[in-house]
Amino acid sequence: MEYLSVSAAQRCVLESVAAMGIETIRLEQSLGRVLAEDVRANRDLPPYDVSAMDGFAVRSADLAGGSVELEVVEDIKAGDMPTKTVQAGQCARIMTGAPVPQGADAVVRVEDSETLSDGRVRFARPAPSGMDIRLRGEGMRNGDVVLAAGTEITPGVVGVLATVKCAQLTVYRRPRVAILSTGNELEGIDEPVDPNKIPDANSYALLAQVQALGITPVLLGIARDDPVELERYLRQGLEYDVLLVSGGTSVGVHDYVRPTVEALGVQMKFWRVAMKPGHPLAFGVLERPDGTKARVFGLPGNPVSSMVCFEEFVLLALRSIMGHARLHRRTVSARLAHPVKMRPGRTEFVRVVLSRDGEGYIATSTGNQSSGALLSMAKADGLLIAPSDSNGLAAGEIVSVQFLDGAAFQDQIGFRE
Amino acid sequence: MEYLSVSAAQRCVLESVAAMGIETIRLEQSLGRVLAEDVRANRDLPPYDVSAMDGFAVRSADLAGGSVELEVVEDIKAGDMPTKTVQAGQCARIMTGAPVPQGADAVVRVEDSETLSDGRVRFARPAPSGMDIRLRGEGMRNGDVVLAAGTEITPGVVGVLATVKCAQLTVYRRPRVAILSTGNELEGIDEPVDPNKIPDANSYALLAQVQALGITPVLLGIARDDPVELERYLRQGLEYDVLLVSGGTSVGVHDYVRPTVEALGVQMKFWRVAMKPGHPLAFGVLERPDGTKARVFGLPGNPVSSMVCFEEFVLLALRSIMGHARLHRRTVSARLAHPVKMRPGRTEFVRVVLSRDGEGYIATSTGNQSSGALLSMAKADGLLIAPSDSNGLAAGEIVSVQFLDGAAFQDQIGFRE
Repeated sequence: MEYLSVSAAQRCVLESVAAMGIETIRLEQSLGRVLAEDVRANRDLPPYDVSAMDGFAVRSADLAGGSVELEVVEDIKAGDMPTKTVQAGQCARIMTGAPVPQGADAVVRVEDSETLSDGRVRFARPAPSGMDIRLRGEGMRNGDVVLAAGTEITPGVVGVLATVKCAQLTVYRRPRVAILSTGNELEGIDEPVDPNKIPDANSYALLAQVQALGITPVLLGIARDDPVELERYLRQGLEYDVLLVSGGTSVGVHDYVRPTVEALGVQMKFWRVAMKPGHPLAFGVLERPDGTKARVFGLPGNPVSSMVCFEEFVLLALRSIMGHARLHRRTVSARLAHPVKMRPGRTEFVRVVLSRDGEGYIATSTGNQSSGALLSMAKADGLLIAPSDSNGLAAGEIVSVQFLDGAAFQDQIGFRE
Repeated sequence: MEYLSVSAAQRCVLESVAAMGIETIRLEQSLGRVLAEDVRANRDLPPYDVSAMDGFAVRSADLAGGSVELEVVEDIKAGDMPTKTVQAGQCARIMTGAPVPQGADAVVRVEDSETLSDGRVRFARPAPSGMDIRLRGEGMRNGDVVLAAGTEITPGVVGVLATVKCAQLTVYRRPRVAILSTGNELEGIDEPVDPNKIPDANSYALLAQVQALGITPVLLGIARDDPVELERYLRQGLEYDVLLVSGGTSVGVHDYVRPTVEALGVQMKFWRVAMKPGHPLAFGVLERPDGTKARVFGLPGNPVSSMVCFEEFVLLALRSIMGHARLHRRTVSARLAHPVKMRPGRTEFVRVVLSRDGEGYIATSTGNQSSGALLSMAKADGLLIAPSDSNGLAAGEIVSVQFLDGAAFQDQIGFRE
């Protein structure tokens, strides 16, 4: 089998996943989920014509001639209903959001008025009809679809859902995810330090990457290089929607995990992708008798490689299952601070730190790009994506950098006021 | 009191907050938190010189003359310890991550070797000493600080923490946050629809904004415009580290909430900021007899204004209390798709959608920028920050756009492979 390009491998993964069922949840628990049905307005908003300002509701005809003094017939606060009709020569004091009374057709802000000693109010300038009035239904109309199925639930969407009184809502369900590490050389986190072993970092880095997507995965533990034990773990993992197996470097997904998952009915889709880091990466699908599927990712044993493969492939699958339309982590353009040596033939993901100057982002390598350098992944703000046809990148070149989770904040305000 | 600039108001908020105590948590629960103490390596990694490739461990002196055939004395997998010393004329088959045996000082990858029918292996080229060997301690050295206090816990950091076997760790604690809405016109989410009322969107939009920072806030509910009821709610809210009060538009923080919180001992720091949307915005601090503090934000009753004030002020306070160094949401440069009208004298936050072309990001207004247009906040990817000295922005102008939460993903791969 030839090496697949990164985007061909991504397409292959996405062909095997789709939103996967729905559930009803409380609004308070909905952040980050995706609406599985259209949401409609259940009333007009504003429910009546309201003032957009603190000021006075007036008849524009009264002000047409310029300076005029009007009698105040009522004070209207938000939540009050007006009790009087504004007649010629009259006005009503009104607060932002309060209903505009009958008779009035404009609002003059308080700064443009002068209250006289006898209680009347003087206005110096005309006010066109409709001024500073928000019309009934301007925000939303009863029955209109205000949020379409497929909308990602951000804080702004939560605000809209509360506005239409969606205390409960229907969303796509989250995938159930299991994580398995393999290899005799691995030492579990609660085991004593053995200088001849390697700590199992993958289970926890992958756990956090899955958590960052709003999903709570299950850690299956460490399978040793024993066919019976491995099969028992894999059988358990294949009961989930998505199984992430990171291979012990001693065996790799090619040698050991792959025949075992194939024997359990998994159809392998690919096991070679032209990327660095990222070797070996395998992907397969188990179609169960009931029509449901398990997807298996065989990730590199090396933690940096495993994390990069997660960002470029697993993340897309998990977000697709959750119903998201936007699957990829954001990219930004950045100037490269220094040259980067490369070999053509594979897409390279270089861990970089992002800084800013007046011209935009600057990308600087975290240093050692050995796939053993997990500390570089801890320092990185993003992955510089170097094209597979490149022989190297020059200092000052504009490159694409994909944010890593945790890179969403910056230390400077970053704008001119 | 004069209007403060956005950055002066941000500095004022930050002067009153700081990391606020520590707690010990499990690694599995640590994503998004901030380390409160340095973390040190508890062993050398790799623990011994290991092979960086699948191949053969050789004596470089044997290959110095070019073509040579060597006897294979051992197979070494990751997790195995070598049992033999490689003598002149010998080599050992070795897997990535496995210990380099005594005697060998270089690794030749399997692709650069030829296994002969008699089991010996032929090498065609010299291998300099040290080739494809990762030295003991190259990744981290026992006792070295690998993560400094103040490090934000990303998935990469979780991987490093697992590597040094930090099953438990000490982090800054999260602030306790209470949210209160005020106003007679507000209708609670579980109350029946009353066409004369306005649904309480603020409580839920703020809830989601706080949740997006990894904090679970408490909703206190809706306080009516009654001094006794309001005082009771505010007293309760001031028991938290941070209290968010969104004002009913009928009263506003100036008229009603402010005297009540001042009577309860809160010292107001500012109540006017030169920004749009965002009026009225107030901030105060209660110093308790035991030296602890409550911070009170009086947010606009309008949901869009309230959400923008959260992003620019409350978010900084909450992240500061959690120990973060990077407090601001990321900004990117974007080209403006169309002109934007503005009045100088205040910083404007325009809700925009971000798209991409070959040149970078393009910012397009969500349309109606009325602060009543909550749907615009649901659609927006970010806030275009228009400088306060600007008379308007032209199409094609390069502007700063601050991501809103939920804008971290995109629908296209966004890079050339």
